Amino acid sequence: MKELTEMGKRACEAKYVLGALSSEKKNAVLYRAAMLLRSGKEALLKANAEDIARARENGMKEAMIDRLTLNEKRIDGIAEGLEQVALLPDPIGEVMDHFTRPNGLDIEKVRVPLGVIGIIFESRPNVCADAFALTFKSGNAVILKGGSDALHTNLAIETLLRQALREEGVTEDAVQVIDSTDRAVTTAFMQMKEYVDVLIPRGGAGLIRSVVEHSTIPVIETGTGNCHVYVDESADLEMAVRIVVNAKTQRISVCNACESLVVHSAVKDRFLPMLKEALQPSGVEMRGDERVREVLPDIVPATEEDYGREYLDYILSLKTVDSTEEAIAHINRYNTHHSETIVTGTPEHAESFLNGVDAACVYVNASTRFTDGFEFGFGAEIGISTQKFHARGPMGLKELTSYKYKIRGNGQIRS
Amino acid sequence: MKELTEMGKRACEAKYVLGALSSEKKNAVLYRAAMLLRSGKEALLKANAEDIARARENGMKEAMIDRLTLNEKRIDGIAEGLEQVALLPDPIGEVMDHFTRPNGLDIEKVRVPLGVIGIIFESRPNVCADAFALTFKSGNAVILKGGSDALHTNLAIETLLRQALREEGVTEDAVQVIDSTDRAVTTAFMQMKEYVDVLIPRGGAGLIRSVVEHSTIPVIETGTGNCHVYVDESADLEMAVRIVVNAKTQRISVCNACESLVVHSAVKDRFLPMLKEALQPSGVEMRGDERVREVLPDIVPATEEDYGREYLDYILSLKTVDSTEEAIAHINRYNTHHSETIVTGTPEHAESFLNGVDAACVYVNASTRFTDGFEFGFGAEIGISTQKFHARGPMGLKELTSYKYKIRGNGQIRS
Repeated sequence: MKELTEMGKRACEAKYVLGALSSEKKNAVLYRAAMLLRSGKEALLKANAEDIARARENGMKEAMIDRLTLNEKRIDGIAEGLEQVALLPDPIGEVMDHFTRPNGLDIEKVRVPLGVIGIIFESRPNVCADAFALTFKSGNAVILKGGSDALHTNLAIETLLRQALREEGVTEDAVQVIDSTDRAVTTAFMQMKEYVDVLIPRGGAGLIRSVVEHSTIPVIETGTGNCHVYVDESADLEMAVRIVVNAKTQRISVCNACESLVVHSAVKDRFLPMLKEALQPSGVEMRGDERVREVLPDIVPATEEDYGREYLDYILSLKTVDSTEEAIAHINRYNTHHSETIVTGTPEHAESFLNGVDAACVYVNASTRFTDGFEFGFGAEIGISTQKFHARGPMGLKELTSYKYKIRGNGQIRS
Repeated sequence: MKELTEMGKRACEAKYVLGALSSEKKNAVLYRAAMLLRSGKEALLKANAEDIARARENGMKEAMIDRLTLNEKRIDGIAEGLEQVALLPDPIGEVMDHFTRPNGLDIEKVRVPLGVIGIIFESRPNVCADAFALTFKSGNAVILKGGSDALHTNLAIETLLRQALREEGVTEDAVQVIDSTDRAVTTAFMQMKEYVDVLIPRGGAGLIRSVVEHSTIPVIETGTGNCHVYVDESADLEMAVRIVVNAKTQRISVCNACESLVVHSAVKDRFLPMLKEALQPSGVEMRGDERVREVLPDIVPATEEDYGREYLDYILSLKTVDSTEEAIAHINRYNTHHSETIVTGTPEHAESFLNGVDAACVYVNASTRFTDGFEFGFGAEIGISTQKFHARGPMGLKELTSYKYKIRGNGQIRS
């Protein structure tokens, strides 16, 4: 683990430099990195081919291999991502509050970087460059631990990012990739509290659980989404069908996809057949409670377990309720505090739902699929926080910062 | 541990009610609790006498017994604290941001409670009522685990707080005190991630370390302060003496007291004798590096270990540097990111120090003793955060909140 400690120390030295960099310098690094990624395609594709060959040997499924694969278009996409972050406003140095106390002390609350951010991620190698762009623009040093399947690709990307830093005269230790596939190293990384200020896992529920369990560093939990659409008795049923179909099927593998439908008993007889027909083309399997099955007798019964599941698949659980209050209670019992929607024509029900549902993003008459840093106008995102601590919902540049108080006096002492 | 789980469940049920309470209702509970504390002095003093008797039997030192002791005046102080929190503005419901996206989605970022807050504290029983006031006013449910020495006192305070809640028709589970002195229960409490949203330890470095190590719940670290005063070459030396004396001796046992002095070599010969004389009446022991000891040859040499220590005692370590940069590097190496001061007449040095020092509160020409929720005008404080995550520096009501996004649409789906 000696090497890991060295990485931590280097990141800590780098953080003081990075926190003081001008926006111009940071943007110059990002543009140069984009250029180097484009001109370095050959090396990237070669490294990626090694990873793919090994993955095939290990019998990885094609869908997973696709996530791992780089091609010219994907590399261009990664480069564009870096340039987009360069265009975003720099959050560092923003005066968030400013006041003077009766004793004359002048207190400024100023936005500063978090320091050193650790990111543990799976599969897709674009995360490596994306995460660097966001953490670097917000003045942080980053240490990345990617999936072992993508190790060569991640290291090739790291080489180009560090070249960009070096050519701009900025410390290369702004980004470091852990060059190991040893699980013990990952566990040790999660406990480098002395050097790492926050740890962000990006990946499936298993990864996130493991990080939360083993980390002594503060963690931002991201991405598990058991999202609901509630169709109220006063809903525009055609709008409700469009929203459920979009939230369920537009992209099934994402955290803001709908996994469960809650329907008011007064409209279930009309709504459920409409919905079934609309979901037919995508082959969505429906699993309902008894009252749902009175209307759709040929669907599978839903179990307690179904209501707690994030399927990430063409499956939808269905639950009948008799009021907005019952819908809220059901959602708060089973959800992952990610994104929830009510479809309703009654403003009072909309307000009850907005206030009562415990989730990062609560919608009225819109698809849950909008929970996303780009859709929110943040310009980028490092993930969706499902915790209430530090940051909630889509996390952009500001969510990767902290603050300090600068206090100016003229000799004040406390009596 | 079954009982602990039941407490967690009850707090979770309470949190949805508390998050929706009006400011008027919350304030009515706080005023009633203050009244009941005043009229219930007899019961409180009786419970407190039991704790004190047991503490004496166990051979507790008198200084610690003093911290544990309630008397009429202290109970009045606790009641006043509740009333002061009632006077503070309610943070819940504040619209922190509001914007409309090109697709018409109207996005409001609204302040909400964190949910269930766990507080683990030592010694002083006033924490029980203070912590309830702040967590309750910010819409949270709280579960308190106090020191075993104060168990009877804490339970007596809990009884009155719950009576106030009941008489105002609010769920009593807004406050629950863990009725156990078993360490295993404390450890289990730190791992009630399913029910508790954030854990705040209030106490010494040992308690905080233990919580950070064992907790699976997000923790706000509070209170360890190895604070420095740096006397620059251009300092007004008389002001510097006043600030060091105040920061070191005004109250030695607190986290924002000065533990270490850093002095520029150009002024040490003039400054150190002045300081020594000024610290003499308080009997402060000075421990210096070689260059300090050239001026004050009869003081103890400072070791590496001294520079890393939070003495909380009449001891001061001293270090000589040749520049502001060296002072910043020394402080960032040894500090606990709490509060640091430069005494200087040079604006450029002040700005370098403000920007370069990594601490919650960085001062120019003022005592570190001002790092305090009341001194900052927050009206109250639950502690001083020394981490960068979620909250930094003095934590008042706002720091006990999170936010949610309320998004209003008219049928938007994602394409």
